[in-house]
Amino acid sequence: MSKTILASSRRGFIRLCGSSAALFYSGMCSAKSAGLENKLLAFRVNAAPLLLNYNENSLGMSPSAVSAAMQATQNLGNRYPDDLVEQLRETLATLHDVSPKQIILGNGSTEVIQAVVTMAEGRAATVIEPTPTFGDVQRYSQAEDLEVVKVPVGKGFQTDIGALRKKAEEISGTVLINICNPNNPTGSIVDNKSLTDWIMDAPQNHIFLIDEAYYEYAASNPAYSSVLPLIKLGRENVILTRTFSKIYGMAGMRVGYGIAAQKTAEEVRQFAAGYNLSAPGSAAALASLVDTAFFKRSLESNQLAKLILLTALDELGLEYVQSHTNFVLHRINGNLEDYAARMAANGIKVGRRMTSEDGWNRLSVGTPDEMRVFVQTLKAFQEKAWL
Amino acid sequence: MSKTILASSRRGFIRLCGSSAALFYSGMCSAKSAGLENKLLAFRVNAAPLLLNYNENSLGMSPSAVSAAMQATQNLGNRYPDDLVEQLRETLATLHDVSPKQIILGNGSTEVIQAVVTMAEGRAATVIEPTPTFGDVQRYSQAEDLEVVKVPVGKGFQTDIGALRKKAEEISGTVLINICNPNNPTGSIVDNKSLTDWIMDAPQNHIFLIDEAYYEYAASNPAYSSVLPLIKLGRENVILTRTFSKIYGMAGMRVGYGIAAQKTAEEVRQFAAGYNLSAPGSAAALASLVDTAFFKRSLESNQLAKLILLTALDELGLEYVQSHTNFVLHRINGNLEDYAARMAANGIKVGRRMTSEDGWNRLSVGTPDEMRVFVQTLKAFQEKAWL
Repeated sequence: MSKTILASSRRGFIRLCGSSAALFYSGMCSAKSAGLENKLLAFRVNAAPLLLNYNENSLGMSPSAVSAAMQATQNLGNRYPDDLVEQLRETLATLHDVSPKQIILGNGSTEVIQAVVTMAEGRAATVIEPTPTFGDVQRYSQAEDLEVVKVPVGKGFQTDIGALRKKAEEISGTVLINICNPNNPTGSIVDNKSLTDWIMDAPQNHIFLIDEAYYEYAASNPAYSSVLPLIKLGRENVILTRTFSKIYGMAGMRVGYGIAAQKTAEEVRQFAAGYNLSAPGSAAALASLVDTAFFKRSLESNQLAKLILLTALDELGLEYVQSHTNFVLHRINGNLEDYAARMAANGIKVGRRMTSEDGWNRLSVGTPDEMRVFVQTLKAFQEKAWL
Repeated sequence: MSKTILASSRRGFIRLCGSSAALFYSGMCSAKSAGLENKLLAFRVNAAPLLLNYNENSLGMSPSAVSAAMQATQNLGNRYPDDLVEQLRETLATLHDVSPKQIILGNGSTEVIQAVVTMAEGRAATVIEPTPTFGDVQRYSQAEDLEVVKVPVGKGFQTDIGALRKKAEEISGTVLINICNPNNPTGSIVDNKSLTDWIMDAPQNHIFLIDEAYYEYAASNPAYSSVLPLIKLGRENVILTRTFSKIYGMAGMRVGYGIAAQKTAEEVRQFAAGYNLSAPGSAAALASLVDTAFFKRSLESNQLAKLILLTALDELGLEYVQSHTNFVLHRINGNLEDYAARMAANGIKVGRRMTSEDGWNRLSVGTPDEMRVFVQTLKAFQEKAWL
């Protein structure tokens, strides 16, 4: 996911409408502006924008997390927040039944991912990952001049563990294996037995970085498993990452973490920045972990919103990948450039091109209300033969 | 005054007093506890703690920054904050009359420092720095297996630019020169002409990382100069860092930045994490930059508080290094371990050992009221022959 799209796209709206710069904006620009007459649907005129491009949680943060962050800002904004950070580390350790020394806190899980890549650079690792997948490992690896080997996903966009394993076993030296599970942008989960067998058989210089950013959406599925049990079994070559950006709706607060064997966690932590968590972020994370009612609401909101979306995709005959996340990769028939431009003209941001084949879009699942609006738009698109 | 005290210290207090764990506490524990009878001064019983160990700004954040951060938490806590971050980049660029492409935003300036070290690692650099100085470059360099050459400060704890330059010129290959100016923990500023001459003469593979975290406290002094003019002259081997943690009182919000030539800034940015600023942090930084009244108050509070402290040090005959920062390195006569333990017993946290010679302490300058209390304590210490 590009980190610049939100900015440029939001600015795109502003430019489109001839508006002056504004921090927050709402509503749509007039149909009379800039050649949009043929793209803007009547019911989308002056409608609230839908931000369905970054897999954010439209529900927002837990109200108690908002309160805790605001209180921490007032009381601790001027202090290095060691206490809150240590509390968070201990709370996460208790939650996951590991030692606090096994927790790697990060400025979002992306910082933990970066730290693992930097550690791997010290061992002259070759990086291997499926394609498409979340782009941060590639980005950090390129900065560090590491070779990145890409293994295309298989049929139905499934991560091909067999092909990844075969490729990894052909490489000499240290290998960093990057697997996002559930995967972004496909939404699919990997075959659990194949991954477990591979990890159990792999040599110690094959390091598994398992990005579980969407873990909470998949956790109740018996076909899905985190690699946490393997870490608890003592595998020192496995690091998992989790985030508060998705189910907890805290993307703007920047808190994520990794879990690994103590020895591995201690090494990875060396490559994270000092004081990497903020006072409001740490406080919000702590509050989120105890707000089980919000967690349930967030999960149920996602399930209902996804049902609304998938039902419409079925009705419209648009193929999609079974999603275990807060986004859905689905067919749009035509090309993505036109589709995204028309959606943008209607105040709806959708994902950018992420697949080698054109004609697919990754759509973030918003709230049920947002999905009802999106579905209405999608149906209107079909009537106009824009799908 | 903050209601809190930081991790290790608070735990220390709690253990000392046999209290159960509590997130916030106030007041001091009883003199009857744990052998403190001989250390706790009568007027410090149940007094509010003083946190004078981390060079934080006791004044707190600008009220408008607090409001902005709280609003951003409520409105944008669940969104990746690209808009705010880009606004901050552009505002800083305007403020410093450079291109936005020359700004390197960081999760505190420490992340920019880390990114520079990672870049230097790619060039197999040798690191050179004065000792004592701020420890982050050394920490990151050790993680990256870079050799760190340390050049002792000269007479009166002055950074010895001549000795640093001589040492750097003896090293072949890329050299990363780390200079904190004003320096932490000494509080002194470097000889401006010597540094400027060195930078103007140095080869391109001598990279200057100039940590200007305390810039704002020194800026009005004609003997002090930032390296920003040299960057504007086009020196591509100079990176300066600044922070919102000190004069702006935002240590808990985690916002810092670097400035360099565009080409250099683009390279350094590759080694920073994605989405490295939070929504509340970015909003608070933006609000701080326009709250010139708070800036003035923060600076004047520091000046008055420092005057109260230095006047007392003069009265007590305790030598100190001329400070251009929000802390003072001063003699305590006896050893630091006993001194710090007695201060801790009185609810006052002071800096840890940072000098090769014992008998010195780095004290953060709090508010004027805090300094009055500290001075009273220091005078009581002298009466008890603890100084």
